[in-house]
Amino acid sequence: MKDIFITENFLLQNDRAVELYHRFARDLPIIDYHCHLPPRQIAEDHRFANLAQIWLSGDHYKWRAMRWAGVAERYCTGDATDWEKFEKWAEVVPKTLRNPLYHWTHLELKRPLGISDRLLDPRTARGIWEQCNAVLAREDMSCRGILRQMKVVLVCTTDDPLDSLEQHAAIAADPAFKTRVLPTFRPDRALAIDAVETFNGYVDRLAEVGRVDIGEALARFLDALRRRHDVFHAAGCRLSDHGLETVDAVQGTALEAAGIFARVRRGKRPSPEEVARFRSAMLHEMALWDHERGWTQQFHIGALRNNNTRMFRQLGADAGFDSIADGACARGLSQFLDRLDRTNQLAKTILYNLHPANNEVLAAMIGNFQDGSLPGKLQLGSGWWFLDQKDGMEKQINCLSNLGLLSCFVGMTTDSRSLLSYTRHEYFRRVLCNLLGADMHQGLVPDDVELVGGMVRDICHGNAERYFGFDLP
Amino acid sequence: MKDIFITENFLLQNDRAVELYHRFARDLPIIDYHCHLPPRQIAEDHRFANLAQIWLSGDHYKWRAMRWAGVAERYCTGDATDWEKFEKWAEVVPKTLRNPLYHWTHLELKRPLGISDRLLDPRTARGIWEQCNAVLAREDMSCRGILRQMKVVLVCTTDDPLDSLEQHAAIAADPAFKTRVLPTFRPDRALAIDAVETFNGYVDRLAEVGRVDIGEALARFLDALRRRHDVFHAAGCRLSDHGLETVDAVQGTALEAAGIFARVRRGKRPSPEEVARFRSAMLHEMALWDHERGWTQQFHIGALRNNNTRMFRQLGADAGFDSIADGACARGLSQFLDRLDRTNQLAKTILYNLHPANNEVLAAMIGNFQDGSLPGKLQLGSGWWFLDQKDGMEKQINCLSNLGLLSCFVGMTTDSRSLLSYTRHEYFRRVLCNLLGADMHQGLVPDDVELVGGMVRDICHGNAERYFGFDLP
Amino acid sequence: MKDIFITENFLLQNDRAVELYHRFARDLPIIDYHCHLPPRQIAEDHRFANLAQIWLSGDHYKWRAMRWAGVAERYCTGDATDWEKFEKWAEVVPKTLRNPLYHWTHLELKRPLGISDRLLDPRTARGIWEQCNAVLAREDMSCRGILRQMKVVLVCTTDDPLDSLEQHAAIAADPAFKTRVLPTFRPDRALAIDAVETFNGYVDRLAEVGRVDIGEALARFLDALRRRHDVFHAAGCRLSDHGLETVDAVQGTALEAAGIFARVRRGKRPSPEEVARFRSAMLHEMALWDHERGWTQQFHIGALRNNNTRMFRQLGADAGFDSIADGACARGLSQFLDRLDRTNQLAKTILYNLHPANNEVLAAMIGNFQDGSLPGKLQLGSGWWFLDQKDGMEKQINCLSNLGLLSCFVGMTTDSRSLLSYTRHEYFRRVLCNLLGADMHQGLVPDDVELVGGMVRDICHGNAERYFGFDLP
Repeated sequence: MKDIFITENFLLQNDRAVELYHRFARDLPIIDYHCHLPPRQIAEDHRFANLAQIWLSGDHYKWRAMRWAGVAERYCTGDATDWEKFEKWAEVVPKTLRNPLYHWTHLELKRPLGISDRLLDPRTARGIWEQCNAVLAREDMSCRGILRQMKVVLVCTTDDPLDSLEQHAAIAADPAFKTRVLPTFRPDRALAIDAVETFNGYVDRLAEVGRVDIGEALARFLDALRRRHDVFHAAGCRLSDHGLETVDAVQGTALEAAGIFARVRRGKRPSPEEVARFRSAMLHEMALWDHERGWTQQFHIGALRNNNTRMFRQLGADAGFDSIADGACARGLSQFLDRLDRTNQLAKTILYNLHPANNEVLAAMIGNFQDGSLPGKLQLGSGWWFLDQKDGMEKQINCLSNLGLLSCFVGMTTDSRSLLSYTRHEYFRRVLCNLLGADMHQGLVPDDVELVGGMVRDICHGNAERYFGFDLP
Repeated sequence: MKDIFITENFLLQNDRAVELYHRFARDLPIIDYHCHLPPRQIAEDHRFANLAQIWLSGDHYKWRAMRWAGVAERYCTGDATDWEKFEKWAEVVPKTLRNPLYHWTHLELKRPLGISDRLLDPRTARGIWEQCNAVLAREDMSCRGILRQMKVVLVCTTDDPLDSLEQHAAIAADPAFKTRVLPTFRPDRALAIDAVETFNGYVDRLAEVGRVDIGEALARFLDALRRRHDVFHAAGCRLSDHGLETVDAVQGTALEAAGIFARVRRGKRPSPEEVARFRSAMLHEMALWDHERGWTQQFHIGALRNNNTRMFRQLGADAGFDSIADGACARGLSQFLDRLDRTNQLAKTILYNLHPANNEVLAAMIGNFQDGSLPGKLQLGSGWWFLDQKDGMEKQINCLSNLGLLSCFVGMTTDSRSLLSYTRHEYFRRVLCNLLGADMHQGLVPDDVELVGGMVRDICHGNAERYFGFDLP
Repeated sequence: MKDIFITENFLLQNDRAVELYHRFARDLPIIDYHCHLPPRQIAEDHRFANLAQIWLSGDHYKWRAMRWAGVAERYCTGDATDWEKFEKWAEVVPKTLRNPLYHWTHLELKRPLGISDRLLDPRTARGIWEQCNAVLAREDMSCRGILRQMKVVLVCTTDDPLDSLEQHAAIAADPAFKTRVLPTFRPDRALAIDAVETFNGYVDRLAEVGRVDIGEALARFLDALRRRHDVFHAAGCRLSDHGLETVDAVQGTALEAAGIFARVRRGKRPSPEEVARFRSAMLHEMALWDHERGWTQQFHIGALRNNNTRMFRQLGADAGFDSIADGACARGLSQFLDRLDRTNQLAKTILYNLHPANNEVLAAMIGNFQDGSLPGKLQLGSGWWFLDQKDGMEKQINCLSNLGLLSCFVGMTTDSRSLLSYTRHEYFRRVLCNLLGADMHQGLVPDDVELVGGMVRDICHGNAERYFGFDLP
């Protein structure tokens, strides 16, 4: 069977690139330190009924492309059958040429689904559907089977502080399953004070879980959150994560935050200024916990969410109606990081950027706080969401190279909701090796494959292994 | 005669690119759905007295380059003779190496002027002047002759609502001339409330034309505009267009707008906030008309105009003193589009972007409102003005590919004031085929020339034909 | 001895690039019209004790990379020995692969230090240390010797108006030293009214130097500054320079500035709005002097300085804790330049940009004020600081080409504090020739080496020679 698109040397444009990838990158295990896999699927070792279930259900990237191509909502999120949805997707695939979906689709069909002799289109749809469904029925194609095949040694899911972590405990309790699955502390809802009722409901549930009376006291709210932070730590968590539209140039104090919290608890709607002050004070406070525990804090900056009100009412969040925010963030970031650094309490930090024009702003910013305590203490995160594609990855890698040290980069993470996304690590590794191979070919770096290959190995695995402080086998 | 610069395979860097261009793109007719050609020139089938008249007169791109090169204003817009102006331009041409003008100049000299064995410079100036003037005297070099030669099947001019459209009617009345020439509804002056006297004069003239008493009543102003919209529709118009420096994150209501209008009619100067509220309410209102009629609304976003006061006083607008605006637009755009989408009244929309750092912001934004009703209902417009060059086109194409579906793109439009600009469609097609050929060559898209060629054909002609709903022959 | 990395054709990817560089660029003398060399070192013809002294001491680019790589401050700015610091740097060098430091390091080792058969790393560190120290001990390796070897015909240092210029006078007085070393008028401290005590101290010192009683009178402050401007002019100065985080869209008047000045002189802290008004009024006033004298005014736009408070307290400014600012600048720049142009008093101007997303904004902006009085009256400055690398240079060159006239560009300047940085002119010339060679190769510019080579010669030397009006030998 001949590979017709995703060949052995896909993306590798010269012999140095080929050597770097196959000798240094291809076989490395995967540390997926940030993703959105549902821990329950792994705990239950879920199996997928068909290709639509594993591939289309919940994938807002594909829905968005289908809507763009003129496909009705019924075939995206509606009541069409799984086969009908897949058939529509197969019609759209040839229309995604040059979009990352075209590459991802065929990468995933090849690995782990085993189809690489055909392109997906309406003519091949039925055959691929049947063959993949048969593959998905195999013993080794459960959630855990897929993780094993893809050599994933560690997965960090993304979890609300309220999460019981029982799924994580169940997974950890099985000695036969070697992949570590750890939680990540993502307290977005503890910051979202602008939605007063939702926020108060959240505080009330936290009070219940923590068996405390929070009332109007920010100190007790923080204390309850902090205890969840401890619980997460005990479960092996070593990262936090925050989604921010921008970073306000506002430094809220604990005192201000306490006043705002009390008023919101009494049902008062906060002003935009108060929302920003509260958020900045909370972020500062929680950053101290991360530093104390030796965690890494992550910030996903620049998503403008839920732009389409009509569809938000119909489908809720994360359904393909999010976008890229613009606006300045340099000063806010500088103040936030500096405030922590002043007292020597700045934790390891990863900044993920969604607006490509900001790459250089963020790459230069992190250089201000590298303090020599470890390599790449602050990181420019890999290309994310809309930028998780060849061009976005190349821009992130080039920007980091030009303004900082690529050699210290902790590399790729899927940030995905799908078990099939693990080929994105392969994709990233090919992109990286291709860039470096081209540099060697052009004399921009020395033509020394051991030197460059060592860097590849570090970026694709070694740096992450050393940086996060996981307790890996 | 040997082509020495604009060769058969100009811009086409590999054999796939060559095949794509010559087999799929080269011979397609041109749908120029947005430009600034003067309809009178076409109606009168104008002929140009000499090369300076057709090439330099009114071309602020060339004036700007001449001033940059150190040429005095006299030779740009002043009282130098046509030959003197051309002679200066010929001196400047070699200094424009790497600027799009260098390519455009030689493309236009080749087609339709027939000169491709020489480069324009001071040594060749006299010969080219004489030869071109002889060519321009030929029967087939009238306005209509040039449009025919360039295979232009449709031209959308850009027209004020006050325009009588008599030139369009005259053109349509001639069955021998096959190119359709349709108006575009561009009501910039109906929004420019900040210039109180000019605005009131505009309203008064509209009242006259519509034979209504507008007075201080916004409803009557809107009604009169709406009737012009109807007249444009009857004349075959299917697009509107708006030039916006940015998109304010302001949602003005009809009530607010009515109050502001009444005050301005009484001579009161509006505050910047009022200007923004009025503009946003008007844009919303007119967008409803476009939706109702099935038109496509266009927004040209990001020009900072009339920066040079001294020259504005001397020459007026559009004389080469405009620039690129910066500043955030994501939130404003999101609100504007969402407000229309909430009631299912969002028309087909094209967003043209002038600040390259915003490409991704706009490409991601339109994805939020693709509703599956037709392919590419919202479009990222082709590289415009300062970005209408190889690099700008490539960035637009790559951005659209990475964040959306290139396959649904309605393609190039000249946006030009000059009859000689039709080679820009050739230029765009070459750029597009070159990118896709390189992708095939590198294995980034399948090496399937029918698959990729079909996409080329759609982008260069088929998509526009289907998208706009023109009544084409 | 074989070159193993910085070969004869380093960065030159095809034969046209090779020909352009070696025939047209390589041997041209250097006009370094903007740098930060200490004039005292040249006046005293300083010699460096060892490689750490000339290479690491004061080089915040290297410190920043070292901190990023995890090296403790002691080895950057602390009390480690010179050898220890160099040893640490040698460890870091292989980790800077793809960062400009990797190129600069090996370029400087080759020229003027004479080592090109080895890469710097821990294994070669000792040998390179000893060999370089021996080289530095040679007669021709004093400051002046290095300038001579590198064919530097002119150096413009960067100087506070208070500077006595005695070092410049001493250098000029030596007829044996042919390199002209001229001051640049950089009055940042005369604008920094927000730091009230420091500012008042500065005003007092100026009063002393100028033997005037400034008191609370802005007119006398301006008069004293203007007299320093005269003194600089007499010393051969032909440029001013300003460092601006952004350009405010604020046009302060002389009257407003006088009021603000008087209040600050009485110890009152100005509001941010007052700071902006004062700065804009001062910049306008000093721009008039530059115009009157035929000087060139430079603006370095977009640095966000001193982000790390802890390290600022420890080390002061310019120690590697600066970054890239974001935020809009188009409108502010437009108003600033227009205000000068209205009265025909706009001097020659160079805008240096630190935020790559702003390249097009600035390139388009300067086109608004090119007035035909000389080629490229307004310039987009070469890639600066974080952008002074291959990618940054290429973006600047491409942007200038696409939006303006590359042929009129005054080219590279080191902007460096180090005598060893003169290979950056070589680097720039190679980058430029490589871009143009690729264009010739691809048919994007005519394959006419005399035509393109002439442009190379102009950009690398001729334009600067003509533009600035220096009195060169």
